Amino acid sequence: MISKSKIRFIKSLDKKRYRQETGLFLAEGNKLVSDLLPYFECESLFAKPEWIASRGKITAKEIVEVSEEEIERAGLLKKTRDVIGIFVQPKMVLEKETLSDELSLILDGIQDPGNAGTIIRIADWFGIKNVICSPDTVDIYNPKTIQATMGSIARVKVFYAELVQLLAELEHIPVYGTFLEGNNMYTENLGSTGFIVMGNEGNGIRNELKNRIHHRIHIPGFPSGGETSESLNVAVATAVVCAEFRRRQVYSVQ
Amino acid sequence: MISKSKIRFIKSLDKKRYRQETGLFLAEGNKLVSDLLPYFECESLFAKPEWIASRGKITAKEIVEVSEEEIERAGLLKKTRDVIGIFVQPKMVLEKETLSDELSLILDGIQDPGNAGTIIRIADWFGIKNVICSPDTVDIYNPKTIQATMGSIARVKVFYAELVQLLAELEHIPVYGTFLEGNNMYTENLGSTGFIVMGNEGNGIRNELKNRIHHRIHIPGFPSGGETSESLNVAVATAVVCAEFRRRQVYSVQ
Repeated sequence: MISKSKIRFIKSLDKKRYRQETGLFLAEGNKLVSDLLPYFECESLFAKPEWIASRGKITAKEIVEVSEEEIERAGLLKKTRDVIGIFVQPKMVLEKETLSDELSLILDGIQDPGNAGTIIRIADWFGIKNVICSPDTVDIYNPKTIQATMGSIARVKVFYAELVQLLAELEHIPVYGTFLEGNNMYTENLGSTGFIVMGNEGNGIRNELKNRIHHRIHIPGFPSGGETSESLNVAVATAVVCAEFRRRQVYSVQ
Repeated sequence: MISKSKIRFIKSLDKKRYRQETGLFLAEGNKLVSDLLPYFECESLFAKPEWIASRGKITAKEIVEVSEEEIERAGLLKKTRDVIGIFVQPKMVLEKETLSDELSLILDGIQDPGNAGTIIRIADWFGIKNVICSPDTVDIYNPKTIQATMGSIARVKVFYAELVQLLAELEHIPVYGTFLEGNNMYTENLGSTGFIVMGNEGNGIRNELKNRIHHRIHIPGFPSGGETSESLNVAVATAVVCAEFRRRQVYSVQ
């Protein structure tokens, strides 16, 4: 049985303010909750008895048996039927020393929760361990973002930092940025380490950051010079760029 | 002034049944409506007087001046402030003869309206003129899909067809399909013409279609064999695959 105040509490985690105050975040549905349980400290689980029985040992501070109707009432997603988990946001420290040996993503003002989550999932696919976000990028613990990561949030570390300052401090690391008017990425030298900066959905990379970018790259449309869409969705563009960096790295062919 | 019955009518176009009965579809917001007006027959425009005045000549059967509050009330999107357009779904004939000279996309049971729209936008970017969908793929005239195309629906033709039958009929055309267990696409021969089949978000390409696919390809994660996300979002995967086909075509380098 789930109390009204618990339902209110669960729903409050849709708001960034309450997530920050409590340091918690919400995940819904069997697949996602099961993916997160081994990696994140679990504060509360609200689950159907069958779900609990099927899991064997579960490590959570509180486990509450609830009915399907109660779960539907408590959840933020329409289709949550089996389990809702409340997890503790991990405290992470950006290890700046290792960044020069890796390929990392930088998100500059990404606003859409789904885009941010999809980008985390892409980072995971392409073996990118760190994603560094400007403070005005959407909160990664937004339930829609967590949902869109499809569990990849367990393997990718996400940080928030003042980007201009960070890139000034790490100026020995090559910085790639995507621009609609950048150089064709297929004819550009791409290294196997560095930062790839992806800009805001509508406005791209902010001005203050532009002069920190060493390589302005661009995904060419086809045919070259033809009339195409004005742009690609930012998550889509992130994937195409990351795929090309990794292809070069593996096949060493431009 | 917009009548209650008009508001009901606008909102009814959120349902596939009413879109099919009327042969109409809905677009909201200045950017999208402006992009579609030159390409689609416009049945009705509901717009603020300033918007109408700023446009010069508009070709539409009916133009209704409305207030911002009325538009917000009538629209399906929260942020529609200036204009709502009702357009006629074009009648299109799939020109099968030309398909053998082109690269086309096939969508097998894509369910998410946003994914379908994003894929149209991707097709447009990569110069893919035809997208052929299984009958159970989401309706391309779903308002969320139209929105996600960001106007690309004006340049990409979308058809619905029984895919098994179509591929049987066009068996001289090479068919590529993406599979999680396919061959690494970077080491596979990719032609510059053919069909690329993208499968349903959860289940992939349906069994009946699988033996019509000549080349099973796969986007490799990084590092090879490492633990990554289980899959990529289908729109994201479409973009990475289309980018690689076009790169090969332009640079002729594997």
